[in-house]
Amino acid sequence: MTVGVLAVDGGQSGIKVRLESGGERTELKFPGVQTDEAVLPQLARVIKRIISETPARIDTVAVGTTGLVKEEHDAGRLAELIDSADLRHLALAHDSVTSYLGALGNEHGTVVAAGTGVVTLGVGPNRVARIDGWGHIMGDAGSGYWIGQQALMAVMRDYDGRGEHTALTAVVKERWPDLSEAYIDLQALPDRISTVASFAASVAELADSDQIAARICARAGKELADSAATALRRVGLESSGSVPVAAIGGVFEGQHVRESFTQELHTRHSGAQVQAVTGNGLDGVQLLAQLPAGHALQELISRCRR
Amino acid sequence: MTVGVLAVDGGQSGIKVRLESGGERTELKFPGVQTDEAVLPQLARVIKRIISETPARIDTVAVGTTGLVKEEHDAGRLAELIDSADLRHLALAHDSVTSYLGALGNEHGTVVAAGTGVVTLGVGPNRVARIDGWGHIMGDAGSGYWIGQQALMAVMRDYDGRGEHTALTAVVKERWPDLSEAYIDLQALPDRISTVASFAASVAELADSDQIAARICARAGKELADSAATALRRVGLESSGSVPVAAIGGVFEGQHVRESFTQELHTRHSGAQVQAVTGNGLDGVQLLAQLPAGHALQELISRCRR
Repeated sequence: MTVGVLAVDGGQSGIKVRLESGGERTELKFPGVQTDEAVLPQLARVIKRIISETPARIDTVAVGTTGLVKEEHDAGRLAELIDSADLRHLALAHDSVTSYLGALGNEHGTVVAAGTGVVTLGVGPNRVARIDGWGHIMGDAGSGYWIGQQALMAVMRDYDGRGEHTALTAVVKERWPDLSEAYIDLQALPDRISTVASFAASVAELADSDQIAARICARAGKELADSAATALRRVGLESSGSVPVAAIGGVFEGQHVRESFTQELHTRHSGAQVQAVTGNGLDGVQLLAQLPAGHALQELISRCRR
Repeated sequence: MTVGVLAVDGGQSGIKVRLESGGERTELKFPGVQTDEAVLPQLARVIKRIISETPARIDTVAVGTTGLVKEEHDAGRLAELIDSADLRHLALAHDSVTSYLGALGNEHGTVVAAGTGVVTLGVGPNRVARIDGWGHIMGDAGSGYWIGQQALMAVMRDYDGRGEHTALTAVVKERWPDLSEAYIDLQALPDRISTVASFAASVAELADSDQIAARICARAGKELADSAATALRRVGLESSGSVPVAAIGGVFEGQHVRESFTQELHTRHSGAQVQAVTGNGLDGVQLLAQLPAGHALQELISRCRR
């Protein structure tokens, strides 16, 4: 029987899975991780299903996931839940670690991953630092949720006469023709987080022609640059001549945020090199299993071998 | 049988009820209004219970409530749900209206009611204007929730090294000793809105000695003043020599917010007179039933007479 390696990238919008076995690669997507309940059983369910449905003997499983609290950061416990006699090596990490590996691999630097939420991870020769990633209430400054929320607030300021007129008003009115009732509908939506974040795309589109949208993008870029610069400082790379900084995730597809981010970061750290990135989260998850011993990121990875 | 008048003040933290009958006054408190479900059945349940338990014949019911969407702003429908043959006059309004009446009665001016949320209502000779009150995601600028959220964000900035140290960190650590796990617990709490708002009290307490807390209070005061000045302008009172502005609710108990509010408002409207207020929401609800015909607030009140 062929041997298989399974990589699992657990995100809020979907659990992506890649199975490599006998030179073949299969990718699948399952419903997203619910961060308000235990994460390991959700992952174990998906992994057990794949193990049962594939003819290959899966001996290595690597997992990067969102929503991993400290007490769940335990590869041994996940291995118990998977309960497979074939499993020889299980590696488990927060998705900020696998985003980093997917973007920068073994290099020292910083990765800012900005989608609905945002988390920044810096890796130096001896230290790692996580910045933000504190969710939509306490943090996630400059994320898609943050941008969408700023847009909604600006629209209601326009509606009240507290703020300037903005073209974002017409966009939000498409969803809620009566703006005065919008908040009641929004607050009751089970998917209110992704609904708020969905307006970030319109902010990016309108930033060329609308002052308010442009200002939101500029502020988002500044927040994200602030996180990146803090990460570089905390891992001892603040005086390095040239340091790679990877800006990944949907938020950076907007030109205004990306430009603001790059400019602001250069005023804080002239050697920061903002990079185009080709690897994705699943590539990073695959690297988990093969990370060199002594790499600073090892301390953030839980492993189980048998 | 004596005739009774029932006043109902529906808030998120409790439904307060006052029954006046035969010269006697009884006040009771019931669990708060759930704003993510229909409000009228919740109010009708409380009102029916009081009608069934009191010996008086209740012929007048006045209700001011939070969470009232347009399609529920219908006294006739509430009367049907109450289904009492004794009922002769039912008046129903958003709690911003009854807060106004409780604070300023028949005078023209503006009331800013800032608790967990905030809503501002301006009343002029011919017009009324509601400003903000758009909930914790899209609005409520300067509210208790807003202040608490700014505090939590400042604490995580301190934790990351993105922001200055603040004494608020020690306060939040009392609740969550491991700050890196706080957001996961918070997001899953059913009472996360009031939990966030609960930190506003610490911000008020620390504002004398902590720069970050002082800045949050100053910004909250500015947001609230902005709403009040916008309300005065929209109802045609911007050039009145002297206009009463009532600042009510727990947020204004903090000296720093109150002072910032008063100062900022005076730079926008020199005639604004920030007032001490004695009447409460229930007093305002009682006035609903007796408001003079032709008062600008009549347009915001739904009535059913039979």
